[in-house]
Amino acid sequence: MTAETLTAAEAAGAMAERRLSSVELVAACLDRIERRDGTVRAWLSVDREGALAAARQMDAERAAGRVRGPLHGMPFGVKDVIDVAGQPGTHNSPLHLSRVPVDDAGCVALMRAGGAIPLGKTDTAEFAAAGGRNAATRNPHDPGRTPGGSSAGSGAAVADLHVPLAFGTQTGGSMMRPAAYCGVYALKPTWGEVSREGAKLYAASLDTIGWYGRSVADLSLVAGVLGIETAAAPRPLAGLRIAVCRTPYADKVSADGHAALDRAVRALEAAGATVVARELPASLNALNDAKETIMRGEGRAAFLPHARVYGDRFSDGLRRQAEGPGVITRPALKAALDYGAHARLVFESHYRDVDAVLCPGATGEADRGLESSGSSILSSLWTVLHVPVVGIPAGEGSGGLPLGVQLVGFRFADGALLAAAEAVAAVVDPWAGRVRVPG
Amino acid sequence: MTAETLTAAEAAGAMAERRLSSVELVAACLDRIERRDGTVRAWLSVDREGALAAARQMDAERAAGRVRGPLHGMPFGVKDVIDVAGQPGTHNSPLHLSRVPVDDAGCVALMRAGGAIPLGKTDTAEFAAAGGRNAATRNPHDPGRTPGGSSAGSGAAVADLHVPLAFGTQTGGSMMRPAAYCGVYALKPTWGEVSREGAKLYAASLDTIGWYGRSVADLSLVAGVLGIETAAAPRPLAGLRIAVCRTPYADKVSADGHAALDRAVRALEAAGATVVARELPASLNALNDAKETIMRGEGRAAFLPHARVYGDRFSDGLRRQAEGPGVITRPALKAALDYGAHARLVFESHYRDVDAVLCPGATGEADRGLESSGSSILSSLWTVLHVPVVGIPAGEGSGGLPLGVQLVGFRFADGALLAAAEAVAAVVDPWAGRVRVPG
Repeated sequence: MTAETLTAAEAAGAMAERRLSSVELVAACLDRIERRDGTVRAWLSVDREGALAAARQMDAERAAGRVRGPLHGMPFGVKDVIDVAGQPGTHNSPLHLSRVPVDDAGCVALMRAGGAIPLGKTDTAEFAAAGGRNAATRNPHDPGRTPGGSSAGSGAAVADLHVPLAFGTQTGGSMMRPAAYCGVYALKPTWGEVSREGAKLYAASLDTIGWYGRSVADLSLVAGVLGIETAAAPRPLAGLRIAVCRTPYADKVSADGHAALDRAVRALEAAGATVVARELPASLNALNDAKETIMRGEGRAAFLPHARVYGDRFSDGLRRQAEGPGVITRPALKAALDYGAHARLVFESHYRDVDAVLCPGATGEADRGLESSGSSILSSLWTVLHVPVVGIPAGEGSGGLPLGVQLVGFRFADGALLAAAEAVAAVVDPWAGRVRVPG
Repeated sequence: MTAETLTAAEAAGAMAERRLSSVELVAACLDRIERRDGTVRAWLSVDREGALAAARQMDAERAAGRVRGPLHGMPFGVKDVIDVAGQPGTHNSPLHLSRVPVDDAGCVALMRAGGAIPLGKTDTAEFAAAGGRNAATRNPHDPGRTPGGSSAGSGAAVADLHVPLAFGTQTGGSMMRPAAYCGVYALKPTWGEVSREGAKLYAASLDTIGWYGRSVADLSLVAGVLGIETAAAPRPLAGLRIAVCRTPYADKVSADGHAALDRAVRALEAAGATVVARELPASLNALNDAKETIMRGEGRAAFLPHARVYGDRFSDGLRRQAEGPGVITRPALKAALDYGAHARLVFESHYRDVDAVLCPGATGEADRGLESSGSSILSSLWTVLHVPVVGIPAGEGSGGLPLGVQLVGFRFADGALLAAAEAVAAVVDPWAGRVRVPG
């Protein structure tokens, strides 16, 4: 067992017990990247020397009895729409190839203050937005398939054992789709729980920082460092009430995707959880339309500066969101924002007697080819609702590619969701506690 | 008449007709700053050489027949929580004295693309937040009094004829109070209309970029450059229906403040407008409480990175918002966010038959001393409602200091509000069309 195969929680434990140094862990990650990233292409830049220097510093501090936090010495990846001071911040845009920001994003600052080490910047759809160019990243389990997007590099890097943890963002389904397609864990916290400062703006009322790990414990470690209240122990499955919701978009889910959800339900019931079938009320059937309207409508304000500064050099697809044709009208944006606010209350009332809601992780296995990163439709509805979501691997489909489920919680109760997710993952993820080595 | 006394609209007209060059205008502003800023202390940094170089460039372009937009060659000030690439970006924090960002904020990028010239950075409450240190800026009309805050330097700079236009931000009442106290015009647009990228994060669902000018026409020129739909002509007062609302906080308004509102109402009626008295429904009496909860609750996420990175070196008041004691709980934040969303619908329904709502600009004249920048209570409620607000000067109080009124519109109808405000200002502001030279 080599260090790069450890989960973040395992590696943190090994470092705390001095069985592993930060330099050994960072070096193992760099070696794995060296061997694999020609195929996977998860990274836009790797700060090899900076990360090793930081690892030496963290090891020296630990030897001197100073431990900054539970992730002291832990390397992590950062989607290249989230700034790391002194590292390239290109947004995967040809307009920003030489951009180097001076500030850490809020999440990066908290991780560094806790002793973690930013290893480099991961590939992303241009500006993490719909309409720009795609990431070059490939699915680690089949380089002929997409890893999902827009947090493509972060999801693939964690799945391919390049780094135990990585940050992404979600405006529609950009955290959860790579989690499902690559077979890793992800948390999209409640909107507003984590500072979005230093992440490229797309849609102000949707954009959310999230992160990938290889277990729910990994997700919880980051949550704690970022100031989210986490529970001390997992919830026992007996006594847990879970609603299954196939969403208004169930007809877009493949037979594989439904089968994975069915398996999860049977496993939960067998382990003593109470599972009830309960779809969203019909009044929430327009959530995905609302996401499209808010994303493109708020994207108008976000991308107008780029359109005016760069003109024809700016991505056509993004320029159209800012200046048309087809720009979202102000009355349409207002109506969608109000619909979203109302839907939050309807959702909470509708599911007030359950602990969490379980739904498919994506429409199915990752698509062939890299042209499309797949559909966000199974995740966008939760983004509009501002609720926390944990992505959990749930076996493989007929093509041998990962499938996932999403466990959805309630606003500002992220810790309770993580506690439930830890119990759920133990019976739903057939790889739980085992190492899966792609390639 | 010297160039620094012109409104932005007048200066733009003079430059378009080649009666004034950008170099002449910028030089006149720099001279005024040189003469007055020792007293007023509006600026944290002035980019003298950069602004003159840009002015020469804009004059050369105009001479060659290239005009980038209606503000081609126009200098403007920028509150020092909004980034200008290559200029200091200190947030008025001792932690960031040497910070120089690499990106223009969205609003600055749009202004530069339109040919306008960032003259320098204006003083602000630390991080534009409640709890940090205050700006050193003084009221141009009485240096023994506060100019209001947190956009202190921007409001004072425009009032004292240092620059025709300046950007600020509002999370509670940070745009509108300096407008009222200093006797200048201000627009806080609809939340989400203008990109907030590049402005320091405080409360994600409240923070709004706004700007100061010396006429409604000035505000509209900037609105147009920032992509807000503006009306071609002012609304005639005859036919305009305006509701007067003294707000649930009317008891905090001085006799002077009420008298200014009374004068405004009489002037509007005399000019043919229909004015109706209509207070907010009682269910909206908690709007200011909601603002406090949202501001400090969202401020927890915004300032946690600073608290963890800088520890004891970070402002005590801001650190308490992030880490307590007295930190806002998550259930309280959620309840306040939901209350705000509901209040937006109640407001629109309650005033659906009027064109705008008129209320006091602040609690009264600027307070003596610089320790406090005054109360935001007359503005915070509108910030929670996300509605656009125009600050309009409305004469003087018993102390000879300016008083203001606020004209409040409806979400995503900023252009309609500006059209109404232009007509209202013509009869409400006794200085309309005349130059007021402080000092």
